[in-house]
Amino acid sequence: MTSSETLPVTDRSKVKRLPKRGQYDRALINQILDEALVIHVGFIANNQPFVIPMGYGREGDRLYIHGSTASRMLQNLQQGIDVCVTATLLDGIVVARSLFHYSMNYRSVVLFGRATLVEGEAAKTHALKVLAEHMVPGSWEQARKPKPQEVNATTVLAFPIEEGSAKVRTGDPKDDAADHSLPIWAGQLPLKLTPGSPIPDPQLAADIPIPEHLLNYHRGA
Amino acid sequence: MTSSETLPVTDRSKVKRLPKRGQYDRALINQILDEALVIHVGFIANNQPFVIPMGYGREGDRLYIHGSTASRMLQNLQQGIDVCVTATLLDGIVVARSLFHYSMNYRSVVLFGRATLVEGEAAKTHALKVLAEHMVPGSWEQARKPKPQEVNATTVLAFPIEEGSAKVRTGDPKDDAADHSLPIWAGQLPLKLTPGSPIPDPQLAADIPIPEHLLNYHRGA
Repeated sequence: MTSSETLPVTDRSKVKRLPKRGQYDRALINQILDEALVIHVGFIANNQPFVIPMGYGREGDRLYIHGSTASRMLQNLQQGIDVCVTATLLDGIVVARSLFHYSMNYRSVVLFGRATLVEGEAAKTHALKVLAEHMVPGSWEQARKPKPQEVNATTVLAFPIEEGSAKVRTGDPKDDAADHSLPIWAGQLPLKLTPGSPIPDPQLAADIPIPEHLLNYHRGA
Repeated sequence: MTSSETLPVTDRSKVKRLPKRGQYDRALINQILDEALVIHVGFIANNQPFVIPMGYGREGDRLYIHGSTASRMLQNLQQGIDVCVTATLLDGIVVARSLFHYSMNYRSVVLFGRATLVEGEAAKTHALKVLAEHMVPGSWEQARKPKPQEVNATTVLAFPIEEGSAKVRTGDPKDDAADHSLPIWAGQLPLKLTPGSPIPDPQLAADIPIPEHLLNYHRGA
């Protein structure tokens, strides 16, 4: 399956505010989705909007999400209701001379669409592999694989990357020219989600070393 | 103004999935809201859910959000429509022996309510101070203060912390007892949003030092 290199600009996906920051390039959208660990999933139930954070995985032009078959949220989503999925990477704080021009550097993706149920043990197991490898590359090889009853107890949904946009801010503050001579520091304070040292489970045998893929863990390229 | 120490449990704020992780304690909710930098704001327009990331500030039992008066999203929200606001702190990845028990450690808050317009130059300017101090404590003292025309060009909304819940996962993996003897590493990989070295604006005079509050920047207690 081949996908077009840009997503179509639709009424709901068009970036209205600061449109020069809006982008529809699939490679950029995928890069953001591959670096983020959490999406915020928006849906409507009883005329009320809900926004729930979830882990996910990406493969090609779809995202996978999963949870217990008892999850009311997943039961709602698998009915094919309209969903908005947003991923946000916070890259830094933009420190301006004037408070008015304080800002944040970020990369975000907003997607629109409807989820579909992933069915069959092979397809579900494959999606669980994608989900695990998204969170921790190397985890599938490392871990005890899912048993059929674990796969059965899991609902897996696929969400299409077909309609949406990325929005990106990078770089320095945009102070008014008249403020440039003020004796006030200005610039960027970079922020990054950073791993600490792995903490072994207290019940772990002492002779099991921390695997390389956890010692070298990082997000992004 | 005093607020009750716990938020009421309502039909929409009750944590249904893994209810033991759900909490309604205002101190915990405030702690999470004070550490996070971004909320994901969910609302309905044309029967479609939207989820948009935004900066914010907290004061007492309200959040402030702001943006250009030209923002269509803020124009929607100030009509008093139902909104869901979610803040998520990702604290780590839970590495289990079995793939089925991989998880994330996190602290999240989901709030329900309706925004109201903050009006009057003094009230708006105060909210802008709260917003700036939330993002960078010390910024209000440091920066050139907002001019009346900048305040006029800004829409500020207040959102109540009245109905909602926190959800928290901490600690080790919960592997099946039968898997504990497997020769597979298990534990936690902590994650934290970490500041890098401040990057001066290229137009900054060389004799302006990086302020202490940026060198010592951190989130959380």
